[in-house]
Amino acid sequence: MAGVKKFDKLVVCGVGLIGGSFALALRKAGLVNRIVGVGRRPEPLAKACELGLVDEISTDWASALQGADLVLLAMPVGQMDAVAAAIAPHLGPDTIVTDAGSTKRDVIEAIYRHLGHRLPNVVPAHPIAGAEKSGPVAARAELYAGRKVVVTPLPENRPEAIARVRDAWAACGAVLHEMSPQEHDRVFAAVSHLPHLLAFGLVHDLAGRANAEQLFSYAASGFRDFTRVAGSHPEMWRDICVANRHSLLAELDAYLSELAYLRALLVAGDGPALEAVFDDASRARNTWADKAFPATPSGE
Amino acid sequence: MAGVKKFDKLVVCGVGLIGGSFALALRKAGLVNRIVGVGRRPEPLAKACELGLVDEISTDWASALQGADLVLLAMPVGQMDAVAAAIAPHLGPDTIVTDAGSTKRDVIEAIYRHLGHRLPNVVPAHPIAGAEKSGPVAARAELYAGRKVVVTPLPENRPEAIARVRDAWAACGAVLHEMSPQEHDRVFAAVSHLPHLLAFGLVHDLAGRANAEQLFSYAASGFRDFTRVAGSHPEMWRDICVANRHSLLAELDAYLSELAYLRALLVAGDGPALEAVFDDASRARNTWADKAFPATPSGE
Repeated sequence: MAGVKKFDKLVVCGVGLIGGSFALALRKAGLVNRIVGVGRRPEPLAKACELGLVDEISTDWASALQGADLVLLAMPVGQMDAVAAAIAPHLGPDTIVTDAGSTKRDVIEAIYRHLGHRLPNVVPAHPIAGAEKSGPVAARAELYAGRKVVVTPLPENRPEAIARVRDAWAACGAVLHEMSPQEHDRVFAAVSHLPHLLAFGLVHDLAGRANAEQLFSYAASGFRDFTRVAGSHPEMWRDICVANRHSLLAELDAYLSELAYLRALLVAGDGPALEAVFDDASRARNTWADKAFPATPSGE
Repeated sequence: MAGVKKFDKLVVCGVGLIGGSFALALRKAGLVNRIVGVGRRPEPLAKACELGLVDEISTDWASALQGADLVLLAMPVGQMDAVAAAIAPHLGPDTIVTDAGSTKRDVIEAIYRHLGHRLPNVVPAHPIAGAEKSGPVAARAELYAGRKVVVTPLPENRPEAIARVRDAWAACGAVLHEMSPQEHDRVFAAVSHLPHLLAFGLVHDLAGRANAEQLFSYAASGFRDFTRVAGSHPEMWRDICVANRHSLLAELDAYLSELAYLRALLVAGDGPALEAVFDDASRARNTWADKAFPATPSGE
């Protein structure tokens, strides 16, 4: 990365898939000298150290943040408030802070609550990287290659801080986008948070049946793909759903209207109207997938 | 297949993924001498002939069925009634008929309506093979290897006819199961038909928005997998949903109750209860996928 200033010290809070992959990617790009991992639990931290995701681990914010150029907050968004409060006294005036939260309005509320004195350097962002797998073992340097990262800058941000955060993600191979936090949360409620909720709900419904074992024994590849996101990290998704529940409820209600329509067509046995819906959907889905995942037809 | 009697003449009605793959697999197993393709439209038939799925094509039931040992009905289930009526006068007393319909009660109704004189030899079945791709081009001899085929025999079936149908599917590499048609339709409403309806519905909902293009541009691999079944054949799924609408409505209503519960948890911001649902679902899904698709963890 010609012309990109190196980070001397990176602190990653949460050394799972997201934080660990960021650490690996920045190191691979030669953009960081030293990486410190911080987290709640000792096991993932020790694992991250063993795997070489981080150089050292710390349980003490004061020493971890001492001389840090860049801090990535990559723990579940439900911890954002506590972590923002914890780091506030120890952030130097030049330390740039960013996050990897899947929701933005709640993260920004936590930032305003606790980091008001550091707003020029706190730049919220969201890397769009599938997270069905989690933990330090899942981390890999290539996770962000070609993936989108949405930066939702604050009005108070220094342009230099935004540029440094963008540079870091670009060094990971990501494609940068900007949005308002409100727009971000609405868009991801529709295309990410709702599908997760729907998949968790279907598996939960079926798993609770008396004949669950029989049902699962006949489930095939369509069910496997539909429910893949239901294998995701429960705590992470609890936090996302709670944090973004207003946008998510709006999306859920729109979807319930759609299901009410489909239900009426089923009751009426209205084949032509059902086919029109399926035809629209099939065309839209395959057009999108062929473009978004061009390697193979229809994103297979 | 030692001891399995060869079929001299196989007639396949509907030469798409399902019928075409059956033809390829039976031929590969050396179990058939001659394969005749029948269908509504000339283009897929010509393609099937060109690709070597069938040896010849026919638009005339009388000549197609002349001397046939085995007939596979593999067109969308909505055509079952018309096709059963059309073949009825031309079926010889020794010709075995089976089908590949994703629903069974409606198929069996059509059989009783039109094939009452041939019931000993008409054995309904359903191969469980993903059908996001369709058409003769998608056909391959290996499609059924290790896949389940559910046979739902009629009380009137000759044991010899059931055995011949089972042998044919076993020769394709499939694993045979038996169920009542009622149970079949309930099970597949839950694990196949409902997920398809839900995925079609989500894509249809989003594709109709003013900001559809923006939404799709931020959809990632989770959305791709969740909606993969929404890329399926609209007519085939129209027929399945209409044919199995009673079981499908029961499943949809159970799912709507689940969504009402999740909605209440979101409104209340009840993180612990949401996490309990997600945790149950995540565990059930990954346990199932690791067992059903053992090649890779969590069915990735």
